[in-house]
Amino acid sequence: MTGVTARKRGRPPRTESADTRDRILTAAREEFSERGYDKTSVRGIAKAAGVDSALVHHYFGTKEQIFEAAIEVAFAPALGAPEAVADGPLDQVGERLARFVFGVWENPTTRKPLLAIVRSAVNNDTAAAVFRRLVVSQVLRRIAGRLDLPDAELRAELAAAQLVGCAMLRYVIKVEPLASADLELIIARVAPVVQGHLTGP
Amino acid sequence: MTGVTARKRGRPPRTESADTRDRILTAAREEFSERGYDKTSVRGIAKAAGVDSALVHHYFGTKEQIFEAAIEVAFAPALGAPEAVADGPLDQVGERLARFVFGVWENPTTRKPLLAIVRSAVNNDTAAAVFRRLVVSQVLRRIAGRLDLPDAELRAELAAAQLVGCAMLRYVIKVEPLASADLELIIARVAPVVQGHLTGP
Repeated sequence: MTGVTARKRGRPPRTESADTRDRILTAAREEFSERGYDKTSVRGIAKAAGVDSALVHHYFGTKEQIFEAAIEVAFAPALGAPEAVADGPLDQVGERLARFVFGVWENPTTRKPLLAIVRSAVNNDTAAAVFRRLVVSQVLRRIAGRLDLPDAELRAELAAAQLVGCAMLRYVIKVEPLASADLELIIARVAPVVQGHLTGP
Repeated sequence: MTGVTARKRGRPPRTESADTRDRILTAAREEFSERGYDKTSVRGIAKAAGVDSALVHHYFGTKEQIFEAAIEVAFAPALGAPEAVADGPLDQVGERLARFVFGVWENPTTRKPLLAIVRSAVNNDTAAAVFRRLVVSQVLRRIAGRLDLPDAELRAELAAAQLVGCAMLRYVIKVEPLASADLELIIARVAPVVQGHLTGP
């Protein structure tokens, strides 16, 4: 008994706060996914996490900052893109980027939070700003940086535009025949375009 | 006095109902633009138009059907795309389509309803279905039809994806440098891609 109590008392506060932080973050992701940015409230997140609103503010600050933290977690796999894409020969960077983006969308685990982020960013200027800051600057800028070409940022964005448009029409709006088309066929069509934007003349 | 009364009485019912119809449609466009599909109600549209909800149902049917009618009006310029794009030499069809799409987005009058439609379609499956039916089948299918090529529909959709992605990043998410880039520069980069999807090998 003494041992247990001692362990309980001796539990470092940092671990406990990390648990609470994680619980809030999980609740935030769920709330943002379910309701979108506009309809999600700090109070709702606190309630779902079983904590007081003040604690949510304490750990994360404003709703915008919670959203950013939630995106950062949801996007953890996507934030690996620059490394995954930049490694390997430059003349296949288009195909690697295409495979990476479609891979994230084809995976049911990552598709749902991604869809929630896209919906929030399309609907709300604050969410769009977070999306820009995080996804664009962390993913696109880094890819552009490794290209080491003039107008590399615009190139990376035009390449991303082809992939963003494909994702919108295939996974969000679900336009046929694109929505049901074989993924390898799409990649075969799209990869050269992405490559052309990134490294073409 | 008698003349006025007679003119009033003699006013053909079709004109009056056309006025009411237009007023409802204008109110519907405003409501969908301001609130998005989910938050717009038939009652709200009726109130904004100064008529009874029953009259809105009488003229247009369900909320989905009102949305479709509102999109059809907002999209009237865009629905001219197939003709505008298909006229002229086939080896410049990519540039014509790119200029058409960016033209609609650059125009402040058409950008707002377009943004509302995109937001609704991204957020709501019913709105997405209307978007698919109207925009995709009326615009993309017709362009594909005039191409007279195998897999013309998929080609048209991949071409559209490049333009949709550019519109998303430039006008909705507002990613820099793309958002502020010179339009002619973007068209110079994007038109060959669109052309390639449509008529390339």
